[in-house]
This record gives sequence, structure tokens and C-alpha cells, in this order.
Amino acid sequence: MPPPAPGDREARRKDVSEAVWHVLADKGFGGLTLRAVAAAMGVSTGMLMHYFPTKRALITHALDLLEKRTAERPRRARPAAGLATVRAILLDILPLAPDDTARNRIWVSSWDLSLADDGLTTEQADRYTRLRSAIRPHLDAARDLGELPAAADPDQLAAAAVAFTHGLVVQALFDPGRFPQDVQITMLDDFLASTALPRPDGGSRPAPGAGARSY
Amino acid sequence: MPPPAPGDREARRKDVSEAVWHVLADKGFGGLTLRAVAAAMGVSTGMLMHYFPTKRALITHALDLLEKRTAERPRRARPAAGLATVRAILLDILPLAPDDTARNRIWVSSWDLSLADDGLTTEQADRYTRLRSAIRPHLDAARDLGELPAAADPDQLAAAAVAFTHGLVVQALFDPGRFPQDVQITMLDDFLASTALPRPDGGSRPAPGAGARSY
Repeated sequence: MPPPAPGDREARRKDVSEAVWHVLADKGFGGLTLRAVAAAMGVSTGMLMHYFPTKRALITHALDLLEKRTAERPRRARPAAGLATVRAILLDILPLAPDDTARNRIWVSSWDLSLADDGLTTEQADRYTRLRSAIRPHLDAARDLGELPAAADPDQLAAAAVAFTHGLVVQALFDPGRFPQDVQITMLDDFLASTALPRPDGGSRPAPGAGARSY
Repeated sequence: MPPPAPGDREARRKDVSEAVWHVLADKGFGGLTLRAVAAAMGVSTGMLMHYFPTKRALITHALDLLEKRTAERPRRARPAAGLATVRAILLDILPLAPDDTARNRIWVSSWDLSLADDGLTTEQADRYTRLRSAIRPHLDAARDLGELPAAADPDQLAAAAVAFTHGLVVQALFDPGRFPQDVQITMLDDFLASTALPRPDGGSRPAPGAGARSY
């Protein structure tokens, strides 16, 4: 078979990435093999060895793809300073729609791999540091706006917000019936409301778990 | 070689479980192979095939072992009704000591496997349901004791507490230097304090992230 023309090569590369994503969303990194990707594409594993000469090359491609699709996903507008922006950032993480569910499922799957490899552990720790750092200035702003108590520690609150969100992701992946979209959103709003001061307009602080949104 | 005597068989079975645990704590389910367990024991893979004729048998043993060691782990006393008991339950989950870290690392690792298998997904969803149900009566008691607002929803609060705790587990596994024991405990206390009402003795509600413990 002659080598494919450049346009074909690009199309084929996209097909390969799509098949890798499909296998990851279905079976996770634990089920990511050349054989599974080849089956998803209806090609031979020999053909795929051209793209991925080693298992390691396949995994590296999968991790890059996960990073790329996460960076390029559609995001909510960041409407205002303070807690409203923290809310938007965290809503962009939760598995509220099918694409978000697949992406989260693959991230959770990647933790097993990352914990077993020192380099990947460091990369994931750095990813968490960046996520907390992205949230942090909006918590500073929330404090300046009087949404949070003056004594609040934005670093620890950012870590708590990420913890709450990722723990909710995991529960929702295992039991989507118990955690449909509206339940996840209500829980996030309750979490944020519980960290906030009562509103200056005299609205009372909502009871935790009661589903009120205070900002 | 003659078959081992019954006492030897039991000792050998314990050695096998110890080796499986060692491999899981180091490499996760993604690195759990007959070869790795055999290497950890210094025996042949052929010898291990006697215990685990299939990869599936090895995985089933590993999951049973994880369940057993989790059930049998030492636990804090449950000192009092209400939030103090919720605190003890959640402290028993966090990776505060090396054994807890290994166990959590293996649980997080198991999620990739469980998400890829319908039966294991159901088992993990049921495990989450049981954990929330174990916390729930203590939140009811906390509400009755006036530690929580009367309008609080204990079901959603139990889910939020589990979410926060497991999300903190994951961050701490990846970055133990950022989340040493005292930081984890402070974050948990802040989380619980943020859901609580101000104390009836007039103690003010602590600022979130400020590390105060209010009960």
C-alpha cells in the first residue's frame, strides 16, 4: 500500500485519536490496548503499530489527548468577580453533560496510572496546583467584596473547593441516577453558600443542603 | 514437591495476600499482574497460577482483600452523637498515616477498574450508598442537637461530606507535601464548621479556611 497523501494522513490521525478516546471513555486506561483501539477502528493492530510502536507511546498519546480536549472544551462565561466566577469554574468541571462525563471518567481512570509513575504523579500534582491557583484570585476577590469573611484563607478554600468538586465527580460517575445535573448543581451551590457570609442585603444564610443559592 | 501441610498452606496464603497488597500499593490495579506478585514473593509465576488460574481470579482476590482490610482497619472511637461522630468517621477515611495512604491509593486505583465493569460499578455505587447511610443518622442527630440548621437536608449533606473527603484524599495522594496530616484535619474541621450553626454558647462561627474547630 502506498503511503497516504498528507490530507489522508491528517484524517487518519484524527480517526486514531477518536478511537483512543472511545476506548478510554468505555474501558479507561486499564482497557487501553492496541488491540482495543484497532478493534474500535476496524483496522489491524499492525497498522496501529505505525502510530504507536510501544504501549508507552499509546499511553502518552492518550494523556496528551485528554489534556488537549480538557483545554479546548467549551466553558461558561466568567460573569463577575468573586464567588460567581468560582461557581462557573467548578460547574465547568462537573459531569453535567455526556461529554463532561466521558472526560471526567477518563481523568479518574488516569489517576491509577499517574499514581504508579513518579513523573506522572508530579504532573498531576502540578495540575492540581494550577487548578487551585486559577480559583484562588476569585476567592481573594470574593473576600474583598465581602462575600467571604475577612479571616478566610483563600488557599485552603481553593483546595476545599477542588476537593468537594472532584469527590462529587467520582460519586456522580458511579451513580448518575442519584446525582443528576440538578442535584450536582444544588450541592455545589450549597457548598459555596456554606463558605459565604450572609448577604449584605439581609438575605439570611441558606441552610446547608436546602438548595438555596445566595449569590 | 509434596503439597504443603495445612499450616503451611495458611501461611503461604497470607504471604500471597501480602504480596498482592504490596504490588497494589506500589503500582495499583494497572500494575497488578501474576508476574509482579511472583516477583514480590520471589517465586515463579507457575506457582502463583495455583492460587490464581486467571487474571480475573487475581483481581477478585485483590478487591476482596481491599474490602477486608478496609473493614478490619483500626477506627477511632465514636465519642458522641452529632457532628463529632461524623468527624470521626471522616477522619477514619483520610490518608493521615502510611497504612491509610496505601489503602486509599488502592481504592482510588480500583475506580478505573470499577468504572469499566457494570457489576463493579454497581458494587462501588452501593459502597457509596452505604457510606452515606452510615453518616446520615449522625447528621440527623446533629440537626436534633441544634448543631445544624433545622432546614438542613441530611441526605445531601452526607453526600457533600463524602465528596469533600474523597476529593481531599485524591489531592493528598498526589501531593502529600502540600497536604500533611494537620492540613487535612484542619480542612475537614473547616468543612464541618462551615455546615454548622454558630454554637449556642455564643462562640462565633469560625471563618472558613481559618482552621478553627467549633464542636
